[in-house]
Amino acid sequence: MLDNRSMATFAEMRRIIADFPGPDQEAAATTAQREGQLTKPAGALGRLEELAAWLATWQGRTPPAINHPRVAVFAGNHGVAALGVSAFPAAVTKQMVLNFTHGGAAVNQLCRNADADLRVYEMSLDEPTRDFTQAPALSEIEAARAMAYGMMAVEPGVDLLCVGEMGIANTTAAAAIAAALFGGSGSDWAGPGTGIHGAQLQRKAEVIDLGLDRHKASFDDPLAILAALGGHELAAITGAVIAARMARVPVLLDGFATTAAAAILLKIAPGALDHCVVAHCSAEPGHKRLLQAIGMRPLLDFGMRLGEASGAALCIPILKAAALCHSGMATFAEAGVSGKD
Amino acid sequence: MLDNRSMATFAEMRRIIADFPGPDQEAAATTAQREGQLTKPAGALGRLEELAAWLATWQGRTPPAINHPRVAVFAGNHGVAALGVSAFPAAVTKQMVLNFTHGGAAVNQLCRNADADLRVYEMSLDEPTRDFTQAPALSEIEAARAMAYGMMAVEPGVDLLCVGEMGIANTTAAAAIAAALFGGSGSDWAGPGTGIHGAQLQRKAEVIDLGLDRHKASFDDPLAILAALGGHELAAITGAVIAARMARVPVLLDGFATTAAAAILLKIAPGALDHCVVAHCSAEPGHKRLLQAIGMRPLLDFGMRLGEASGAALCIPILKAAALCHSGMATFAEAGVSGKD
Repeated sequence: MLDNRSMATFAEMRRIIADFPGPDQEAAATTAQREGQLTKPAGALGRLEELAAWLATWQGRTPPAINHPRVAVFAGNHGVAALGVSAFPAAVTKQMVLNFTHGGAAVNQLCRNADADLRVYEMSLDEPTRDFTQAPALSEIEAARAMAYGMMAVEPGVDLLCVGEMGIANTTAAAAIAAALFGGSGSDWAGPGTGIHGAQLQRKAEVIDLGLDRHKASFDDPLAILAALGGHELAAITGAVIAARMARVPVLLDGFATTAAAAILLKIAPGALDHCVVAHCSAEPGHKRLLQAIGMRPLLDFGMRLGEASGAALCIPILKAAALCHSGMATFAEAGVSGKD
Repeated sequence: MLDNRSMATFAEMRRIIADFPGPDQEAAATTAQREGQLTKPAGALGRLEELAAWLATWQGRTPPAINHPRVAVFAGNHGVAALGVSAFPAAVTKQMVLNFTHGGAAVNQLCRNADADLRVYEMSLDEPTRDFTQAPALSEIEAARAMAYGMMAVEPGVDLLCVGEMGIANTTAAAAIAAALFGGSGSDWAGPGTGIHGAQLQRKAEVIDLGLDRHKASFDDPLAILAALGGHELAAITGAVIAARMARVPVLLDGFATTAAAAILLKIAPGALDHCVVAHCSAEPGHKRLLQAIGMRPLLDFGMRLGEASGAALCIPILKAAALCHSGMATFAEAGVSGKD
């Protein structure tokens, strides 16, 4: 882990990613053994059983438990917002951060519902990134510092991390990152975001294409893509996902922008998101495409497209349920229930 | 509502169903108006918004709230279990009821997770229904009494009802009911249940076909289908769904057997399940087919196939989240957040 975020560099991030811990195979084996003895037909809890095994494997403990879930929302502003790619003005990013602080946003209610700790990380809201059609959105140093800042969301005691974002115009940045990582053009990845259509949506696709064209020389380096097309909040998410892996904290990823920021890591190391589950498939069409590209299966498909970690926070009770079923159910022997004929 | 369950008759049930209250249009309108003012792009909470509106409409109050969710698990035994249609012996029904009582089953953990009240209704476990290949599983009087018994699950104060079942061989009964209601043969609707395959699965399909053939003369009467092919716990579920509608309590339906029991009502009155949401799509293949037949869209698709209301109980926090977001979020005006450009 980084001691001083002013020291953060891409080289250091790459070193950390290369040292990522793998799955705890002992926890996986212990969980599988217990699962087979619980009072239900084998496999009858379906994905809840998979989630219990995944939690144990990446928490590195059996039985798994979620006692201190944290929801981290990173907020940043984007230079490309000035190009008219969003339905809302850039000022809304800061206004929504205030709304988070006052408890009035969706994520506040969802954290209350899940008994989760909400932290909002306001990142240089008065200094948006540079317009990526003109220059890299962030310098390498700025991006690495934002990553290091995001790493601080993983504090001792947290045993599940939900990550999400707030940033007017960041579906434009996310779409550009997705295209840079997985191919395709602006029109393949651009979507309505907060609610644009027609000529404005076409403009958004063009802005993405301009960014792709300007920065394509650096597309063989995923962290350079993050800097060129990303944003403070997106780099922070990448950092938070890294820190969670190091600290054995499973991660729930939220929607399109969050998944795009996390997908940077997959292009650096193939198993880099094995400690993550995607909470939901967003209504933003790029998310479905992105989930196909990275081969991840979301828990919910609710047509949500709000960001602010709302989908991830909504799924915390599902993960708690998975852990509770695994740890709390009686075995056939304990309950005196007959096995299969 | 019935005062004395010994008085219950199908005629009385039909009268109650004919008097079903409709949606509370005023609650629906009030909810829609508030939803449009909350601090998010219109529609950005997707299905959570639909669920909030549905809760308000069928609770008949605004904002909707879930303070006293109840999980009702009805347990019964089936004469057809003796024909070898299940992987587990019939004795498991009672053993699992004891497991529920001692807190060792999945549904106990899921109720704890959702802070829900669990009630287990043990229905004549020592007197299984008759083998429906030989005679109607229940007489009209027995079925009507079981329905009336199920109605008692809706007590004052309950503001969400989750219904589910436990009954060895009841996927055989459910498949027969589904075939009688919506057409098709035993092989179309039979599935592995607790885990059968090959010749045993073929036998299950044959048993269903024998039941369909014996009772086909009564298939123009959905309540007669319930009696001929159902079971105590399935009739109780039908009754609980009726009572919930009368008392303005929204319902979460669990898996295949539960949905089949509820679908009886749809054949009596087209809007009879409008106060219900299907919690999940079971791995039991007949459930997907049944959901298509009745046009209902489940919340989760987790490959679960346990019954005992597990899928429904798992979804309670999702409904709570929907209600909380609607009631707790600030409006644009309250939060001082700018609207669309």
